[in-house]
Amino acid sequence: MEASPTLFLITFALMLGASRGDFDLLQDVCVADLYSGVKVNGFPCKHPSTIGPNDFFFCGLANPGIPNNTVGSVVTLAHVEKIPGLNTLGVAMSRIDYAPGGVNPPHIHPRASEILFVLEGELEVGFLTTANVLMSKVIKKGEVFVFPKGLVHFQKNIGTTPAAVITAFNSQFPGTQSIAATLFAASPAVPCDVLSKAFQISDKEVQIIKSKLTPKKQA
Amino acid sequence: MEASPTLFLITFALMLGASRGDFDLLQDVCVADLYSGVKVNGFPCKHPSTIGPNDFFFCGLANPGIPNNTVGSVVTLAHVEKIPGLNTLGVAMSRIDYAPGGVNPPHIHPRASEILFVLEGELEVGFLTTANVLMSKVIKKGEVFVFPKGLVHFQKNIGTTPAAVITAFNSQFPGTQSIAATLFAASPAVPCDVLSKAFQISDKEVQIIKSKLTPKKQA
Amino acid sequence: MEASPTLFLITFALMLGASRGDFDLLQDVCVADLYSGVKVNGFPCKHPSTIGPNDFFFCGLANPGIPNNTVGSVVTLAHVEKIPGLNTLGVAMSRIDYAPGGVNPPHIHPRASEILFVLEGELEVGFLTTANVLMSKVIKKGEVFVFPKGLVHFQKNIGTTPAAVITAFNSQFPGTQSIAATLFAASPAVPCDVLSKAFQISDKEVQIIKSKLTPKKQA
Amino acid sequence: MEASPTLFLITFALMLGASRGDFDLLQDVCVADLYSGVKVNGFPCKHPSTIGPNDFFFCGLANPGIPNNTVGSVVTLAHVEKIPGLNTLGVAMSRIDYAPGGVNPPHIHPRASEILFVLEGELEVGFLTTANVLMSKVIKKGEVFVFPKGLVHFQKNIGTTPAAVITAFNSQFPGTQSIAATLFAASPAVPCDVLSKAFQISDKEVQIIKSKLTPKKQA
Amino acid sequence: MEASPTLFLITFALMLGASRGDFDLLQDVCVADLYSGVKVNGFPCKHPSTIGPNDFFFCGLANPGIPNNTVGSVVTLAHVEKIPGLNTLGVAMSRIDYAPGGVNPPHIHPRASEILFVLEGELEVGFLTTANVLMSKVIKKGEVFVFPKGLVHFQKNIGTTPAAVITAFNSQFPGTQSIAATLFAASPAVPCDVLSKAFQISDKEVQIIKSKLTPKKQA
Amino acid sequence: MEASPTLFLITFALMLGASRGDFDLLQDVCVADLYSGVKVNGFPCKHPSTIGPNDFFFCGLANPGIPNNTVGSVVTLAHVEKIPGLNTLGVAMSRIDYAPGGVNPPHIHPRASEILFVLEGELEVGFLTTANVLMSKVIKKGEVFVFPKGLVHFQKNIGTTPAAVITAFNSQFPGTQSIAATLFAASPAVPCDVLSKAFQISDKEVQIIKSKLTPKKQA
Repeated sequence: MEASPTLFLITFALMLGASRGDFDLLQDVCVADLYSGVKVNGFPCKHPSTIGPNDFFFCGLANPGIPNNTVGSVVTLAHVEKIPGLNTLGVAMSRIDYAPGGVNPPHIHPRASEILFVLEGELEVGFLTTANVLMSKVIKKGEVFVFPKGLVHFQKNIGTTPAAVITAFNSQFPGTQSIAATLFAASPAVPCDVLSKAFQISDKEVQIIKSKLTPKKQA
Repeated sequence: MEASPTLFLITFALMLGASRGDFDLLQDVCVADLYSGVKVNGFPCKHPSTIGPNDFFFCGLANPGIPNNTVGSVVTLAHVEKIPGLNTLGVAMSRIDYAPGGVNPPHIHPRASEILFVLEGELEVGFLTTANVLMSKVIKKGEVFVFPKGLVHFQKNIGTTPAAVITAFNSQFPGTQSIAATLFAASPAVPCDVLSKAFQISDKEVQIIKSKLTPKKQA
Repeated sequence: MEASPTLFLITFALMLGASRGDFDLLQDVCVADLYSGVKVNGFPCKHPSTIGPNDFFFCGLANPGIPNNTVGSVVTLAHVEKIPGLNTLGVAMSRIDYAPGGVNPPHIHPRASEILFVLEGELEVGFLTTANVLMSKVIKKGEVFVFPKGLVHFQKNIGTTPAAVITAFNSQFPGTQSIAATLFAASPAVPCDVLSKAFQISDKEVQIIKSKLTPKKQA
Repeated sequence: MEASPTLFLITFALMLGASRGDFDLLQDVCVADLYSGVKVNGFPCKHPSTIGPNDFFFCGLANPGIPNNTVGSVVTLAHVEKIPGLNTLGVAMSRIDYAPGGVNPPHIHPRASEILFVLEGELEVGFLTTANVLMSKVIKKGEVFVFPKGLVHFQKNIGTTPAAVITAFNSQFPGTQSIAATLFAASPAVPCDVLSKAFQISDKEVQIIKSKLTPKKQA
Repeated sequence: MEASPTLFLITFALMLGASRGDFDLLQDVCVADLYSGVKVNGFPCKHPSTIGPNDFFFCGLANPGIPNNTVGSVVTLAHVEKIPGLNTLGVAMSRIDYAPGGVNPPHIHPRASEILFVLEGELEVGFLTTANVLMSKVIKKGEVFVFPKGLVHFQKNIGTTPAAVITAFNSQFPGTQSIAATLFAASPAVPCDVLSKAFQISDKEVQIIKSKLTPKKQA
Repeated sequence: MEASPTLFLITFALMLGASRGDFDLLQDVCVADLYSGVKVNGFPCKHPSTIGPNDFFFCGLANPGIPNNTVGSVVTLAHVEKIPGLNTLGVAMSRIDYAPGGVNPPHIHPRASEILFVLEGELEVGFLTTANVLMSKVIKKGEVFVFPKGLVHFQKNIGTTPAAVITAFNSQFPGTQSIAATLFAASPAVPCDVLSKAFQISDKEVQIIKSKLTPKKQA
């Protein structure tokens, strides 16, 4: 006869004893083994005996990122590589910090919708439908906006002080494809005439954008 | 011959003209028609011609809730009933405000995992696995913790000042089943001996708890 | 040229010969390798050459469980750990036996809906919605009742003879979180004041319930 | 400020009052409105105010079906059309009764895996993989066997007394495609030479099988 | 007693008679009612009595599209709006015709992976990962290439004759977001400085691209 | 502080440098490691550093298959075993070539819907609902037809010249169960009386069909 999980008086004795079932725990959570030699969709799970509360914790969003770059924004991610307990759970977060006038340039998340909460500041935010309709709005501290899965979207700090937001995704690893970088700074490069036809610009103009967006080699 | 979505010079003229395709828009988003007479899993969609940026916006999390109640906490939800644009997108948020010592009592979300970010204060947070192992941790401003889908969890303000958090869910309508209320204040009532056997308490003790948790009738 | 699966005259010769395709079989079923060193969501699959009909078979529900415990019920599970062929198939079963007056105390399955068929006896069964509405009914031999995914539910033998049911789940490993045990007998313990606030009882009353529900250490 | 679902003292008053939230209930369950003029994938939901425990109940499996037909078996279904509360829940049941020697002929369920529990008797049961490997076994009262999603399977009563089983599916409406009937008794008819080539029989033999399997017109 | 779907001799008489079950058919397929006043995720279903083989048929890919435009390519879609029977089935097709040197400019499908088969000609095809790595290849008649879900991709006819391909998607309505048009020809317009920062070009250069990509008003 | 994926100027330097993130790439695609010792649902992924464009390419559909067999058709598959990059992407293709009069006999794909495009010739194609209704149509070059998931379907070349089609599936490995072969040529064999009762033919007739469909042993 098998012990019953709903029969707690007996169950506890069994579960807390020597025969405690690793499998039970494994199925509630599958904490990512980030360094496993086996690669699967998502991550393999750590052995249940090695997991603990810290696998579900992250402190890396507590401090603002420093947007000292050309676009004036910096994204700090809290996805499965940072919080291994997120594996199989289907959620993740990020924090974005913006300098005054800073822009989180147009990008997509191929695997997630996103919901954004303003911690500080005033932002213009928007997404584009496949009919090329812009849905945009100015939002401020404490307000929320939504970006549907897979659609191009952006944010811009329209205030004169730094801004910051918390966003959440319905994927443990939403992925980000930043449009300008993807097209003009990929390696190998996207063929020049594909870009010149797409944007109706000259090959020379394509090269100029490429030169500005491609990271410099370190000396 | 059909117009091509990737052939933008022609497509735009068509899409912005009289024959513009409602269907394109409809499939990117399905903004909830909260008042439709037809009920479906989730919500039917509003007609695409009636949607706009405000369908993806919510200001109701900007101000703290007032936890003037027995448990000392109040949850403000930002789900599909508050943000109709969330329909079919699979995300939602909430804000929780806690008085000093306030508790968000043990509860489950039957349809979502949850990720929590501390806005202010210091909290003890935890969830329970099906093996009845408590995974808990003290977290403070800017830190993040995760509650796996369907498992009982709770938070408690362990500081001497008010605390507040933002949480996100991977469901447009995660649902909440608060354990004590569900068992002791349901209508109709859960049979007394089911509760007395479950908690190993007397029928009288069951009645006392029920009387405390059941909402009073309005005079 | 590749052999065609629909071209059976040729296909058979190939498949039954030396080059027979393990992959074909692997994708129809993925029999759990319960003892693999690699942990994944669910289980890795046994090598197809080692599987057979017994991987899809279980005899452990044939005999009644013996409910000689405080609550008067015992659950016998037929999930993926018992029937490795269930891996990836999304179904499982259980048998529950009840002494007269026995109760399967309030619990949730975080990963499955459940459908129950009465083998013998007369039971009061019910579930609670997130609006704390009890949906309950008395059912007898041959009758069926349904418990939606993630919601608290219970059964009680209201007859004077033993009762038994067969239940099925839409998960290979539905999981069970028995509410009273989860809250009052977890390890580490749920903080006392979280429980006293939730149930509006004194700390002393919390301790009494904990002492009754916590499994005794073996001498 | 919005009422909190975890703040039960306040919540109850609201929920049980005039403003009680239909939406809460709607999302826990979506009881099928079988007679709605609107057809969707699955079924639209009944208005929450009209649902009750009977929507989750079925008594139609209590009595044996009478297998007085050519194959000697009869299936009684307990799916969403019989139990409207199953809508969106992803489970269903059936009862099958077999005369001695009766056969539930080869068939598939296009939308579900199946798990079978023997109520009475002794059966030979089996399924076929896409590599045309038969996985079969003789099972008896109280034993369990599994049929993977979408694969051809069958059962046969090998005892000298009636047999009966309860089966469960991970779909609210698994569908059944009985192979012989589908091919030889469809309306309009499958072209004769498609069948003669498939089974390597003459057109005349196809006609004979068709004549036996096609239901007779009522006089 | 309920009629059995596997009991074909009896079942046929019932199904073909007056009481024939619309529900059975409804669940196999849910043919889109494109003109329903009710909007849902996907489409409501036509009444089963009104569907027929033509709902699963499309002739619009038989003839080449004429790529007489700036980019030199034209896409013809065969999705659920063209083949209503695709509703709920999760597949769609398209045909793309290219002039010599024609480009299908960089775009994403937010809801589908894509697989491409070359009917005629020689193409350079590629997609970009979120690490901005280009995966590209020259393919010719009869060859196949794959574009993962949600990632930017493109094709270019590198031959001196027209080219054509058939592509398939794992969505009934994959959606297309053509990058250049989405960013530079949306309505309302994406803010100028968002684009100038993203592409590191001047506001004047942004205006020039916008003027080229925005469809002209009809006189 | 973590580098931002949307902050491309900084990101590129990081990603293209020594610390470039394998994980980013892993999650966009999970190229099947067909020869891994670990078996999972689908396939484990190859190490990201070893993947390239050829993992997403296949040339095996370019040439017609030769249908020199009894049924007069041959299927060439382009699924995950042929295109390892398809792993986790949920699409696949096949090419079918038919001799004049050739038949692709009735079969099911347990894991996919299918959409068919005619390359050459004229075919009668059809599928059967679970209500045994045949949905069939004659289609010719350039036309498209759809077969819903899990339902029996077939094609027949009704022209006097060879025919060919391209089909696509919404599964990386749709699987094929050819009905006649599955029932009459399985190993071990399906019990004779199961087949004789199902098709209402004699045991001798069952044996004759079996002898014709079973592959001959090689001398």
